[in-house]
Amino acid sequence: MPSDEDSMVVTPYEVKGDIDYDKLVKQFGAELIDAALLKRFEKHAGELHYLLRRGVYFSHRDMKWVFDELEKGNPFFLYNGRGPSGHTHIGHLTQFIFTKYMQDKFQVPFYFQLTDDEKFVHNFEMTLEQTNFFARENALDLIAMGFEPDKTHIIIDSEHAGTLYPLAIRVAKRITFSTVRATFGFTNSHNIGQIFYTSFQAVPSILHSVRVGRNVPCVIPLAIDQDAHFRVARDVLPKIGYFSPAILHSKFLPGLQQGGKMSASDPESAVFTVDPPKVIEKKLRNAFTGGRGNAAEQRKLGGNPDICSIFANYQLVFMPEDDKLGEIERRCRSGEMLCGECKGICIELATEYLTKHQERREEARDKIEDFLLKDP
Amino acid sequence: MPSDEDSMVVTPYEVKGDIDYDKLVKQFGAELIDAALLKRFEKHAGELHYLLRRGVYFSHRDMKWVFDELEKGNPFFLYNGRGPSGHTHIGHLTQFIFTKYMQDKFQVPFYFQLTDDEKFVHNFEMTLEQTNFFARENALDLIAMGFEPDKTHIIIDSEHAGTLYPLAIRVAKRITFSTVRATFGFTNSHNIGQIFYTSFQAVPSILHSVRVGRNVPCVIPLAIDQDAHFRVARDVLPKIGYFSPAILHSKFLPGLQQGGKMSASDPESAVFTVDPPKVIEKKLRNAFTGGRGNAAEQRKLGGNPDICSIFANYQLVFMPEDDKLGEIERRCRSGEMLCGECKGICIELATEYLTKHQERREEARDKIEDFLLKDP
Repeated sequence: MPSDEDSMVVTPYEVKGDIDYDKLVKQFGAELIDAALLKRFEKHAGELHYLLRRGVYFSHRDMKWVFDELEKGNPFFLYNGRGPSGHTHIGHLTQFIFTKYMQDKFQVPFYFQLTDDEKFVHNFEMTLEQTNFFARENALDLIAMGFEPDKTHIIIDSEHAGTLYPLAIRVAKRITFSTVRATFGFTNSHNIGQIFYTSFQAVPSILHSVRVGRNVPCVIPLAIDQDAHFRVARDVLPKIGYFSPAILHSKFLPGLQQGGKMSASDPESAVFTVDPPKVIEKKLRNAFTGGRGNAAEQRKLGGNPDICSIFANYQLVFMPEDDKLGEIERRCRSGEMLCGECKGICIELATEYLTKHQERREEARDKIEDFLLKDP
Repeated sequence: MPSDEDSMVVTPYEVKGDIDYDKLVKQFGAELIDAALLKRFEKHAGELHYLLRRGVYFSHRDMKWVFDELEKGNPFFLYNGRGPSGHTHIGHLTQFIFTKYMQDKFQVPFYFQLTDDEKFVHNFEMTLEQTNFFARENALDLIAMGFEPDKTHIIIDSEHAGTLYPLAIRVAKRITFSTVRATFGFTNSHNIGQIFYTSFQAVPSILHSVRVGRNVPCVIPLAIDQDAHFRVARDVLPKIGYFSPAILHSKFLPGLQQGGKMSASDPESAVFTVDPPKVIEKKLRNAFTGGRGNAAEQRKLGGNPDICSIFANYQLVFMPEDDKLGEIERRCRSGEMLCGECKGICIELATEYLTKHQERREEARDKIEDFLLKDP
């Protein structure tokens, strides 16, 4: 019989089973973020972001080395990205919020990769025109978050292949089919675009170094399901003369239904940044919570925020203030507040947040060219 | 025990065993060029090229359809290329000579692909800088042959990836690892650059259609070891809305040593276009011939041009005139001429040919940008 650990699958292409983050960190050979590391964050950033305080970013690779280098006067750059199989959802905002905090506090360059090629080769029914459309839509969400245009470089794989491909084949030359088979679970039936793709995801982690002509540490804040790409990349990049990127792993934002993570390809699992108020309200009203079978029971026993998708939304996106979040948690656990009231609060916060976001998102349409990576 | 057919291996990455071209054509599912097809060549081109008359181009796929389309007023375009693992050798000139005949007679566009990416991922010891250097050197040889700049588009994979990659992934999505394993003999130990590469070689066979916005037949004159790429491409391209390319297969120019073909990675197997007269002379003097053990025996029994690398050089490159070639053959078979004299003739022809070529090759350095494909 498979153990719990065996039944938990977390790759960029499949997330299943009950996620045990501690086990995952061990399995992936990463390290939990400890108090000492948090102190270094606080020291250098001036303040600890709520996503660090709350343990949403919970695990890392090589961040101690990144701070050592920073202290020697060798600052890092930031890289992460998004697979544009659909519109941006609230789960993605977590990563944007945290990366913006990192850029603001450390004033460093940030490369954001939109992998329209990946989503095209992995989704038989999607055309490259569709994934490219969503890449440009997703870019609007990033820009709407207020990143600095001078320091932010958006890469769209199909549009920047002229820059990426010559670097990708240097990576690809060092990766065998055996490696991608073991790492991503690929079989002989996977297509050669899927097999090759990971070499494209490795490239932005050296791109800044290539552009400035010297090795610069790279920090990648990402959801832990993307780790596989960088386990491979971290092995290969030193062999071709570059630093291995450091990684900051976040937990997933749970989906609005029970189990699973938010997914851009499952519209009901997530609130999307483009959803109008009525849709936001409907999705959140239908969300899975930690409530009891009936009101009387809940008044007596209290709710369970630990398994509640609404509470996760507060934690990760809509309620950066610890005191407000603590009050919500207290009222829930005590049975003082029922799910209906709590959903109402969440709907109000989400609607306000996303209405403003949608305005900035439309304004971003005129700015997108300023943010796209300039090919040399 | 393996049969003869089994021991003959002809893929883009390995050529071994005694090559039986008739068996190869059957094995690959191609068709021999017959008298009827030669007639259509002659009719449309005005004359039959010596490489067709001599059966150097001997096999094809879909050329009848190409002439049908031509007769309906839908002319084709040309595509072939070269893997820049070293300088151009005389064997490559055969392809250039024939393709120039096709362009001159049919006045059609020609796409020439220099696969510096392929040679980089396939040769562990070569850098991309080296394969790219040879790509640009090889381009000079092509230009030196006198192709028309308006109708000739040189593609260098690492430099044109911006145009090629978005098309390559459309091809790659339809090719599984099983297919490339069976077609190219790849194993789990091959790297993912090698595995992906064939999708790049497929692209120029649709590139003209993409650029003009309608399906145009493509004709690819190539040495038969490259057939594997197009067996795969011909399966895939109709699934994504394009014509399968038609193919014209040539035999290999045999290497200067006994057995094997000329190879850019084995300097002694071939005369290179950049070789100075002394090197040309030395290589041809040492070449394997169809001569006998000693002069007396050869005077009596005659030589055998069928297995002679010098005779192959006349046939394929240096002696387009059938009467002259016939006279050489007669004098060889009769024992009237010994190998020393014959090599002297070949050295003279080769030196004259290559000295002129080298002049045009140097002049080509100023023209290369005119020939490079313009990205849209």
